[in-house]
Amino acid sequence: MKPDTKQKILETGAELIHLKGFNHAGLQEILKATGVPKGSFYNYFDNKEDFGLQVIDYFVGYYTVMSQPIMEDPTLSPLQKIKRLLEWFMEFFKSKDYTYGCPIGNLAQEMGDLSVAFRDKLKSALNILIDTYSGLLAQAQKEGEIAQNLDVHEAARFLVSSWHGALIHMKAMKGPEPLENHKRFIFDHILTP
Amino acid sequence: MKPDTKQKILETGAELIHLKGFNHAGLQEILKATGVPKGSFYNYFDNKEDFGLQVIDYFVGYYTVMSQPIMEDPTLSPLQKIKRLLEWFMEFFKSKDYTYGCPIGNLAQEMGDLSVAFRDKLKSALNILIDTYSGLLAQAQKEGEIAQNLDVHEAARFLVSSWHGALIHMKAMKGPEPLENHKRFIFDHILTP
Repeated sequence: MKPDTKQKILETGAELIHLKGFNHAGLQEILKATGVPKGSFYNYFDNKEDFGLQVIDYFVGYYTVMSQPIMEDPTLSPLQKIKRLLEWFMEFFKSKDYTYGCPIGNLAQEMGDLSVAFRDKLKSALNILIDTYSGLLAQAQKEGEIAQNLDVHEAARFLVSSWHGALIHMKAMKGPEPLENHKRFIFDHILTP
Repeated sequence: MKPDTKQKILETGAELIHLKGFNHAGLQEILKATGVPKGSFYNYFDNKEDFGLQVIDYFVGYYTVMSQPIMEDPTLSPLQKIKRLLEWFMEFFKSKDYTYGCPIGNLAQEMGDLSVAFRDKLKSALNILIDTYSGLLAQAQKEGEIAQNLDVHEAARFLVSSWHGALIHMKAMKGPEPLENHKRFIFDHILTP
């Protein structure tokens, strides 16, 4: 067995779960797409739920790696970093013809009520996303880019939750308008000096 | 066959789909919960997708009936009506221990990428919700409750999409904070005079 078999199962499963949802992406389908026999799967994962929980970690890891060049770009102000992150995602969804949405948001919607283990894991994942923005907003506040009386943690929570709603509308509208509308309201009404 | 059999299937199916999602709520399960034989189902619906599309109409109808007393209350200003609608939902979700979410938003997330028929129907359903708020905001603007330069249609789109995101976070956090946070940002930062 190659050492990267587990990673391969995670990558392929993540892609299918991202597009179809956790319950609708069958284990057989994931294994077939990976080209891995069922026995191998159980070397790495206790069951499909355990696999799903590790897929959430995979998505968080993907987000961290993807955002790193923007987060560490010394030429960008904190507020510019937030804008650049949103724009990165808008380009991503354009390239996907406005499908997929955020896997963490999707799974929170699908699995939040159906599994306590999923809910706990998704709560942590959402808090990681929120903390990223909360940190950037605290820096933006320090540098006078946003209002001093804004509660940066609450604003970060609203930024992320309203983004997840915009992604839902994007999927139904099959176009960029909900994302552009989100960006406009966040930057024109909330993240103002 | 009783004349209300179709309605009974729709009601029971809507409840199951609302909690579990469309793909995860099996037809057998819906029929068993309704106590209706499979043959009856096909008297009313072509297939499960057709049923799902009619469930969306059912949800929109439910929303219209639910919101009517608030919409027509002559003692409330337009902005108070919006506040009252949000509060009605916050009470509803409290009574459901912060589960379920909005069925239209849930289905847009789950089915938007998987079925063109669903996507088109959900787009219409979302636009009905948005138009409700857009109408209230136009009145609020006329009465000077909100800023004259606010684009009420864009604001309505943001109000509804960010609400759907707050509901996703509610399901993961299993508490009212995301809804309260949504209400605070909408009323403190966007729907201001």
